[in-house]
Amino acid sequence: MSVSNFAQQASKPSKILTYETINPHVKRVEYAVRGELAICAERIKDELSNGYSHNYRFDTVVNCNIGNPQQLKQKPITFFRQVASLMEYPDLLLPENRKQIEFLYPSDAIDRARRLLKQIGSIGAYSHSQGIPCIRDNVAKFIEERDGYPAEQSSIFLTQGASAGVQSILQLLIAHSNVGIMIPIPQYPLYTATLALYDAQPVPYYLDEEKDWGLDISQLASSLSEGRSKGLDIRALVIINPGNPTGQCLTEQNMREIIDFCHKERIILMADEVYQTNIYQPAERPFHSFKKVLRSMGEKYEQFELFSFHSVSKGMIGECGRRGGYYECTGIDSPVVDQLYKLASVSLCPNVQGQIMVDLMVQPPKCGDESYALYQKELSGIYESLRRRSIKLSECFNQLEGVTCNNAQGSMYLFPQIRLPQKSIEAARQASKQPDEFYCLAMLNATGVCVVPGSGFGQKADTWHFRSTFLPPEELFDGFCERLQRFHHEFFEKYRD
Amino acid sequence: MSVSNFAQQASKPSKILTYETINPHVKRVEYAVRGELAICAERIKDELSNGYSHNYRFDTVVNCNIGNPQQLKQKPITFFRQVASLMEYPDLLLPENRKQIEFLYPSDAIDRARRLLKQIGSIGAYSHSQGIPCIRDNVAKFIEERDGYPAEQSSIFLTQGASAGVQSILQLLIAHSNVGIMIPIPQYPLYTATLALYDAQPVPYYLDEEKDWGLDISQLASSLSEGRSKGLDIRALVIINPGNPTGQCLTEQNMREIIDFCHKERIILMADEVYQTNIYQPAERPFHSFKKVLRSMGEKYEQFELFSFHSVSKGMIGECGRRGGYYECTGIDSPVVDQLYKLASVSLCPNVQGQIMVDLMVQPPKCGDESYALYQKELSGIYESLRRRSIKLSECFNQLEGVTCNNAQGSMYLFPQIRLPQKSIEAARQASKQPDEFYCLAMLNATGVCVVPGSGFGQKADTWHFRSTFLPPEELFDGFCERLQRFHHEFFEKYRD
Repeated sequence: MSVSNFAQQASKPSKILTYETINPHVKRVEYAVRGELAICAERIKDELSNGYSHNYRFDTVVNCNIGNPQQLKQKPITFFRQVASLMEYPDLLLPENRKQIEFLYPSDAIDRARRLLKQIGSIGAYSHSQGIPCIRDNVAKFIEERDGYPAEQSSIFLTQGASAGVQSILQLLIAHSNVGIMIPIPQYPLYTATLALYDAQPVPYYLDEEKDWGLDISQLASSLSEGRSKGLDIRALVIINPGNPTGQCLTEQNMREIIDFCHKERIILMADEVYQTNIYQPAERPFHSFKKVLRSMGEKYEQFELFSFHSVSKGMIGECGRRGGYYECTGIDSPVVDQLYKLASVSLCPNVQGQIMVDLMVQPPKCGDESYALYQKELSGIYESLRRRSIKLSECFNQLEGVTCNNAQGSMYLFPQIRLPQKSIEAARQASKQPDEFYCLAMLNATGVCVVPGSGFGQKADTWHFRSTFLPPEELFDGFCERLQRFHHEFFEKYRD
Repeated sequence: MSVSNFAQQASKPSKILTYETINPHVKRVEYAVRGELAICAERIKDELSNGYSHNYRFDTVVNCNIGNPQQLKQKPITFFRQVASLMEYPDLLLPENRKQIEFLYPSDAIDRARRLLKQIGSIGAYSHSQGIPCIRDNVAKFIEERDGYPAEQSSIFLTQGASAGVQSILQLLIAHSNVGIMIPIPQYPLYTATLALYDAQPVPYYLDEEKDWGLDISQLASSLSEGRSKGLDIRALVIINPGNPTGQCLTEQNMREIIDFCHKERIILMADEVYQTNIYQPAERPFHSFKKVLRSMGEKYEQFELFSFHSVSKGMIGECGRRGGYYECTGIDSPVVDQLYKLASVSLCPNVQGQIMVDLMVQPPKCGDESYALYQKELSGIYESLRRRSIKLSECFNQLEGVTCNNAQGSMYLFPQIRLPQKSIEAARQASKQPDEFYCLAMLNATGVCVVPGSGFGQKADTWHFRSTFLPPEELFDGFCERLQRFHHEFFEKYRD
């Protein structure tokens, strides 16, 4: 251990806690989604709002670095916010306010708030650490209806977003520093960040860009055997489906193979399914949950161990700031579930408004309810617009010199490959940047568009990508694409080999 | 390492992930506040609500195990909830709803919501990972007004409650398994739980029950030298002021000694100040923040390194379910602050409604505002009632045979000592329980009152205590005390030596 002891610091600098003395695993954490590019974008925003707009050729920064729909003006689902608003201020439901409330709120929002308040009491109280029991009941019902197989509320943990759930499970799995966790490359950097923090070893498997970022089972096998040959105790396989940053959606046949692979190799499956409703080719590539595919495979796989994650931050809901989500434990030994409960209890409980949003997500207005028509209209409006924008942006990228981009089957991202001119690669090296980072920084400075370099997600050696959401408002999309195209052309002209 | 490798498990039991294979540090975590007693209380609640009330001599369970005021019917501060409710559903602020809204909401709540919405945008968007900048500005102003010394928004981190902040700082400090952290005994078990989880060593120092749970500086010195003699790299001292579970409030003189001790010994100070407004002897024992006392000590201590924690869960606010809080970094090296920012960014952001509650806590209605009178009335109503209940409950405890209890100078808890009859100690051993746990379980089964055994917080060898909040509603207090006294008498009769 190379960390210096506080008392032994030879030079005794003025500070005790320094970059040199802190937890070295913290230092190793990288999280590009909010990394240098994002910090630089914040600085430009500050400059623009402090009157330094003459420094730039644009007047707003567009954050395409993070799947944060409401930051880019996506409107929240009205019914959800109506219920949340009544939960905050239950005095609104007193008889003396009836006339006003009936003017402002639809009857089903009022009924839902009354029911939740009766079950929960105050949203200002700590709840059950695993999540409010009646909300977990509703999550279990939602899973049963989605999959056609039973689910139990006792196997559901409500969380502060899916990330918190993923971190708990990895913390549980990482028993020593020789534990290996299989992760896709490219991956969402939560995984590598958490493995660095808890001191475990990522065991990468590559997604196939040529085949729409598909998952080839032989890749898993070779990655596993390579990891095992290094003596790693490989404990789990992470699948992000639909993919982030890659946007692919797995076929049922492929999912069966994956389950069978894990079963044979005695590996836990972690299924990150937060984009399950962001599906843009529903006929050809519908979403299937791993839980459903597992249960359809029959008795042989009854004991299979699976954690599945979901969130209120994605889909058409996009309530990122809320920090709500859940995970389901399938086939997990009950003393292990008890340990997860104990771990959750140290953090007391997930925030209650986040839990309520989970309830609303899994029990939205039904046909016949007063709010149903509006809910359907809002949902399909957002969905259709996302789909149109995903196509528009991939067309825009595919028109750029040296760029190829797969269509999004799902999620909120595109991950185009850029074949960068050699001169720009050299310029990047001179600036001590990765070539894709260099390109993305130039894009930010020229257009105000903030994306994330592919190196933040991992990519095949000597290939360069970036991840961009397709979340900017539709009415700004043409201007947005135009700015990108102009920048790209100028960049290629400048560095043409 | 005694953990078995997944692939090497000799017997290959049906489950891969078992109690034996998980992270051993998770197993070592103990968190009594939500431990066996609390789980047992939940079971009794279920029985009572499913018609098995004939099994018990009471009809409700009273949770005195956790400082959760709104669970025990404390009403939330009206102004805070009004603002939160408007933030959830901004359409309420549209011109067409003006008449209704002006009937339902005071003008200052409407103004505050408009201002926050303008600054924040949607509460459904991820915010800055360190917390919304304008809210951090307000926190800094609040600290400046409280202490009379400058504070910087760039040194404030908004968090999901104080616990999340404490865990981040400990994670940062624990660079290897030989790191020692000095903690009070009795302590709030978040600290031992987190040290177990991150694999560091608690270095206990004892609070002096004879002196109102005061902190004797010589205790710190002997505890430090004992820890260092074991080769530990002692990095931080945790002070909980006002105390949890012990309720003491430190004098300014004592705090100066503590700061001087840490300064001399090159130790970081972690000041858990979440009960800063729960002060019941304000003339004799006012609250002083460590930041203020530190700054009052002049230039010699300018480089001193301090983390201070605060929360919206405690005080008269009691918004526990919200998960909001902050910590302030004082004198922390800026590359270390950058690492904390990176760590925060992996979890994206604290939930936005929690951040808004922090804003409301640090900027409540002022004199002249429409809501000021009601706010003051609610605040002082809760405060005076808490103070009355703290006295009433300590009188009740002090009347019990073999029980002594210090008055609460602060916080929400009493920590009475019980001199248990020898026969009950033997009966406990036979039931494989700690004697205080045995007593508390008997109390729960006889009265429905759930408290936490002293062994969950640590106590001097062969002394027995329990922690009880004084949060049950005032109108139920006489009956509550009567039930406790009857139980205690019967218990002592049964086990009389």
